[in-house]
Amino acid sequence: MSIKKECELTRLESASAELAVAGNGLLSRRLLLGLGLGGAGLSVASGALGADFDIPAWSKQPGPGPSGYGQPSRFATGIQRDPGRANPLYPGGGASRTPLHQLRGTITPNGLHFERHHAGVPDVDPTQHTLVINGLVAQPLAFDYESLLRYPMVSRTQFLECSGNSGALFRDTAIDGTAQSINGLVSCAEWTGIPLSVLLDEAGVSPEARWISAVGADAASMGRSIPLDKAVDDVLVALFQNGEPLRPEQGYPMRLFVPGWEGNVSVKWLTQIKLSKEPSQFRDETSKYTDTLSDRRSLQFTFPMGVKSIITSPSGKMQLNNPGLYQIEGLAWSGAGSIAKVEISADGGVTWAQAALDTQAGDKSLVRFRLPWHWNANPAQLISSKSLVRFRLPWHWNANPAQLISRATDSAGNLQPTRSQLLAEKGALAFYHFNAQQCWAVTSSGEVKNVYV
Amino acid sequence: MSIKKECELTRLESASAELAVAGNGLLSRRLLLGLGLGGAGLSVASGALGADFDIPAWSKQPGPGPSGYGQPSRFATGIQRDPGRANPLYPGGGASRTPLHQLRGTITPNGLHFERHHAGVPDVDPTQHTLVINGLVAQPLAFDYESLLRYPMVSRTQFLECSGNSGALFRDTAIDGTAQSINGLVSCAEWTGIPLSVLLDEAGVSPEARWISAVGADAASMGRSIPLDKAVDDVLVALFQNGEPLRPEQGYPMRLFVPGWEGNVSVKWLTQIKLSKEPSQFRDETSKYTDTLSDRRSLQFTFPMGVKSIITSPSGKMQLNNPGLYQIEGLAWSGAGSIAKVEISADGGVTWAQAALDTQAGDKSLVRFRLPWHWNANPAQLISSKSLVRFRLPWHWNANPAQLISRATDSAGNLQPTRSQLLAEKGALAFYHFNAQQCWAVTSSGEVKNVYV
Repeated sequence: MSIKKECELTRLESASAELAVAGNGLLSRRLLLGLGLGGAGLSVASGALGADFDIPAWSKQPGPGPSGYGQPSRFATGIQRDPGRANPLYPGGGASRTPLHQLRGTITPNGLHFERHHAGVPDVDPTQHTLVINGLVAQPLAFDYESLLRYPMVSRTQFLECSGNSGALFRDTAIDGTAQSINGLVSCAEWTGIPLSVLLDEAGVSPEARWISAVGADAASMGRSIPLDKAVDDVLVALFQNGEPLRPEQGYPMRLFVPGWEGNVSVKWLTQIKLSKEPSQFRDETSKYTDTLSDRRSLQFTFPMGVKSIITSPSGKMQLNNPGLYQIEGLAWSGAGSIAKVEISADGGVTWAQAALDTQAGDKSLVRFRLPWHWNANPAQLISSKSLVRFRLPWHWNANPAQLISRATDSAGNLQPTRSQLLAEKGALAFYHFNAQQCWAVTSSGEVKNVYV
Repeated sequence: MSIKKECELTRLESASAELAVAGNGLLSRRLLLGLGLGGAGLSVASGALGADFDIPAWSKQPGPGPSGYGQPSRFATGIQRDPGRANPLYPGGGASRTPLHQLRGTITPNGLHFERHHAGVPDVDPTQHTLVINGLVAQPLAFDYESLLRYPMVSRTQFLECSGNSGALFRDTAIDGTAQSINGLVSCAEWTGIPLSVLLDEAGVSPEARWISAVGADAASMGRSIPLDKAVDDVLVALFQNGEPLRPEQGYPMRLFVPGWEGNVSVKWLTQIKLSKEPSQFRDETSKYTDTLSDRRSLQFTFPMGVKSIITSPSGKMQLNNPGLYQIEGLAWSGAGSIAKVEISADGGVTWAQAALDTQAGDKSLVRFRLPWHWNANPAQLISSKSLVRFRLPWHWNANPAQLISRATDSAGNLQPTRSQLLAEKGALAFYHFNAQQCWAVTSSGEVKNVYV
C-alpha cells in the first residue's frame, strides 16, 4: 500500500514542479480533476467488504419511514449559525452568522441564512398582515398575502450581505476568528417574488416621486429609504426563499429584496411602501448604516456592496494535520454584477494565480472558487516521510508557513482592494462596507489564523 | 374605488381581445408584467396606516432573537411532504411527495425534497461509514468521510425524479389528486460533490470494466448497476445539498447523484462502487424498476427521464373563487438536457400558446413557466358584475369551463407526448416513466380536477 501511495506522491512532487502557477505551492487549476488527491483514499485488499468490514447497525434493520418535513442528521448538529450572546438592553436585537466554512456550493440552506434583527423576529400571521403602498401615488393600495400570491413572480439566485459583515477587520489588531465569525453575514438564496415595479404601476407613481420608504412590521419599525430608480429596476417583494415561503427570520410573509445593496435595505416583514420626494431619514439611516469619515462627517445612502472574496478553506481556527495537497476554496461576489475572476496568493500577495470558478458566475450571486495547493512543496522532505499515508495517526513535522489571500475582480472591472487601500479610502472611523482582501496565515505547525499583511 | 377597478377590468377586457394568443382566455406572455392583476390590490384611503389599520401585536414588542438553525413559520406548517400511510409489511418503505403546488421558484428546500426509501432512513454515523471502490480496478480503495471532504467538488442544480412519479396516470380512470399527490416525486437542488471519475481514476479502472454497481448502506442494501460510460461522464458522489450536508433521507453522509436518470440509481448512503463486466442484476433492477411490455417481457435499464411538464397552479383540488386574471404556472424538465419551450392550452389541446420561462433553463434543472390566463373572457358578463372587486365576499357565478394542459419541448427536440401516444408506446402494463401531458379541468364553478382528454 505505501509503495503505491509513495509513487503517487512522487508523481505529485514532480507535478508540483511542472504545474506550479505561483509561489509557495499553488498548482494549475486546469489539472485538478485528473490529479485527484493522491493520498486520501486508503488502499484495501481486493476482498474487502465482508471479512475486513463490520456491517454497521444501520445496515441490519430498517430505519424510520418518510416524514413531513426533514431535518439535518443528528451527526451534523455542529453546523449552526452563531447567534452570539443575547443583550438584555437590546431585546431581540443582534445577528447570527452563516457557517461558511462548513458549507459547499453556493446556495445557503434556509435554516442557516444569516440573520440581523433590530427587535427580534415577529410572529406574523399572514392572514392579518397587510402591505400598503401610499404617499405620492394616484391611488393608495393595500394588499393581503393571498392576493399577492396571485401575482406573477420571478426568481433570482443572489447574495445578501450585511453592510457590517467583516467589520471586525477594520480594527487595529487582527482578531482570531473563523470564516463564520468574521465573514458570516453573507448568504445566497433563490429569492422569488413580485417585481416591485408591478405593484407600483398599479398604484400609479406620481411624477414628482423620487424615493420609496420601506417599513417593516417588527417592533423596531425598521425603515429604509431607497431611490425610486432602483425600486423600479430590480427590487422584488419576495415571498419565497429557496422554493418555500420565507422563514420568519427572513421576513415571513414578505420582505423587500434589493439586489446587490446592503442587507438592511431589504426590509423584512414589509408592511408599507410610501412614495415621496425626499428620503424619510429613518433612525437606521441617520444614527446607523452611515459611513463616518475621518473628519466625523458621515456619508448616507452608501448602498452597493463592493466586490469581495473570502477563502473558506483553509480558514481561521482550522488545523491542517499533514502537508500535502489541499483545495483552497472560497466564495466571491459583487454588488456591481458578476464575478469575472478570482486570484489566489499563497505567499502573502507576492505572486498570484487564477482560481477555477466551479459554479456559474451569475449576476450578484455567490460564486465558488478553488485552486489546488501543495502545502510544503519540498520533494525531499515529503518523500522521506513514510508516515505520510497514515494520516489518522498523530505525528510531527514542520512545514513551510503560508499566507493565503484571495482577490476578486467583477464584471464591471472592479478589483477587490487591499486592506491598506480600503483604510486609506475609508478612514479610521469606518465600520461598514469592509470588502478588502483578507489573509489567513498557515503556521509551520498547521494552525490557520487571521492576520494582516 | 370600484370605479378605478372597473376601469382596469375594462382595460383588461379590451386587452383580452387584443392580446389573446390561444383559445379560452390565454394572453400574451410578453405583456404580463406591465398589466398587473388589475383587481387584487384593494384601494385604500390616502391616510391609511394609522386610523384605518390596527397595529398588530407583533409590531408592539420585540420577538425572539437570532437562532442556530431556523425553521418555517408556524403559520406555514401546512406545507409538508405527504408521507402517506406506513405499511407494517414494508417497514420504513415508501415515499413522500413534494408539495409542488405550494412552492415557487425552482429550488426545493431540503426539508421538502421528495423521499423514496426501500428500508427507511438509516442513522449513519459518518465517522463509521466507508465508501469502498473495488472489483475490476488496479487497486481497491476505501474512503472515509473526512478524506472525501478534501477532494475538489463541483455543484450542479439539477432535478431528481422517481421513475414512478405520475404513475397513477397510467390507470384507466383519472384519479382525483393534487399536483403533489400525483406528481410530487420530483424535486430540484444544488448538489455538490466529487466527480465519480476522479475517484475511479485513483482506483485505476481495468480495461475490461463496463459497469459499476452502486450499493447503499441501508438495510435494503439498495443496489443498482450503471454503465461505466455514464459513471465517468457526469455522475457525482454528492455530499452537500443546497449548501449543507445531505439530509439523512437524501443519503447522508454521501449518495450517488446521476443527472437526468431515474431517481433510484442515485443510490443513497453509498458504501460501495464495484466495477464489473456485466450488471449485477440486483433485486431492484429485476423485480422492480423495469418496464413491463404488453406481452409481459420487461425492458431493463431504461434510465433516462423523459421531457415533462406539469401545471402546478391552477392544479388538482384547488378552487378558483372568482373569474378574472390568473397566472397559469408550472415546472418543466428533461433528462435529455434543458427545456427549449413550454406551450399551454386552455381548451384541452385545441389551441396552444407559448409560456414565458421565468428561470434560467439550465441543463437538467427544473424550469418554471408561466402564462397569464383570463378565466371567462366574456366582456359583457364580466363588466356587468360589480361584486368582482369585493373578492373576499362569497358570491355566485358561472364561468366558462376550461381544460388546462402544458407540453414541453427539450433542447434535444423531444416533445412531451400526449397520454394516448405514451400508452400506445408503453402498453397497458406500464407503471414507470410516465411523462405524458396532463390535463387539469376547471369546472364552471371553479373546481380544478385531474381529467383525461
